[in-house]
This record gives sequence, structure tokens and C-alpha cells, in this order.
Amino acid sequence: MSSESQQDAIFKALAHGRRRQILDALKEAPQTTGTLCSRFPDMDRCTVMQHLKVLEEADLVIARKDGRERWNHLNSLPIQDIHDRWISRYAGNAISVLSALKDELDG
Amino acid sequence: MSSESQQDAIFKALAHGRRRQILDALKEAPQTTGTLCSRFPDMDRCTVMQHLKVLEEADLVIARKDGRERWNHLNSLPIQDIHDRWISRYAGNAISVLSALKDELDG
Repeated sequence: MSSESQQDAIFKALAHGRRRQILDALKEAPQTTGTLCSRFPDMDRCTVMQHLKVLEEADLVIARKDGRERWNHLNSLPIQDIHDRWISRYAGNAISVLSALKDELDG
Repeated sequence: MSSESQQDAIFKALAHGRRRQILDALKEAPQTTGTLCSRFPDMDRCTVMQHLKVLEEADLVIARKDGRERWNHLNSLPIQDIHDRWISRYAGNAISVLSALKDELDG
């Protein structure tokens, strides 16, 4: 479990819908900053890069340079930590069933 | 998955260390507001109740009245949803192993 100030950074990063959408996009596969910008044509490049910076500072995105390209990877570990903090490994299965049931009823 | 504005509420609620501590306390077992207040003697009752209100609005806490007592329950479903949004069920196992390894290395 990371420190409480790191946790603050994680939840503040996740509290913005755009940043959650960027993580959604990175869940599929790592992407270059250029590709991400083209996926969000309603945001200018600067805004996308600012969101990526916030996500990187929260350790939710890990960036790797490859020549002139910057590849952004989703880091799931902080998200796993959120889960593990409040859902025990044993309860997890029961909650998964409840969650699936709720989706079924909602949808 | 709840709506994006509901997600905003969840992450804003979780972005405060005190509210995370209240959820930690409720993870053990549901507790009355009175018991919670006595567990956090450095917060006045009003502050604890304000935090509970934010958690309840984010659906992270469910409150039930029993006579004059108010029992606060942790609702894990939104936390499970966070996990399921960015960690696939198959990847979850691998991430759990990595997470345990990281905890081991961190000491």
C-alpha cells in the first residue's frame, strides 16, 4: 500500500472523467501520446499531456520513451491496492457475483 | 458501472485521508455513528458526520437506522466497479501476484 499522500494523488487523478477515459483507452494496449491525442480530437495536445502528467505522478500511467515516441502504459497496481484495501480476498468472489447480478438487473 | 458523475463523487469521496480511514474502520464491521466518533477522538462529531454524508452520497456507505442508532455499513460494490473497469478478470490474478510480490519487496 502506498503512502496516504500518494493515495490522495491517485484519487485526485481518478476524480476527472477525462483521465478515466484515458485509462480506459490504455487498458486495451499501451499507446503513444500522439495516438492518444488523435483518439481525443476534442482536447488539444497540451491538455492531453497535462492529464497524462497527473496520471503519471499518481503512478497510474508509466511512460517509456522509444526514440521520438513516448509510450504510455496503464499501471494497474494502484487500482489493485484500492481493491485490496477494502475488499478481502475471500469477500472478493461474493462481491463479484453481486456486482454481476447488479449489472444484470440494471441492464 | 455507475454514471460518470457518480464516479466523480466516488473518487472525490476517496480523495480524503480521513474518509479512507472511516472506510477502513467500517471494513471490520458496520458501526454506529457514535462508535465511529469515539474511534476518531481528534475529530468532532459534526466533522465525522460530514465525512459520512460525503461517503453516503458516493454510495460507499449505506446507513440504516435502528431506533435512535444509525448503523453505517461499507458498500464495496463501487470499489469492485473501479477494479473491474481497469483490471480484467483474467489479468486480476496476475496483478494480485505482482502486488503481493511488491509488498514483499517493500518489506
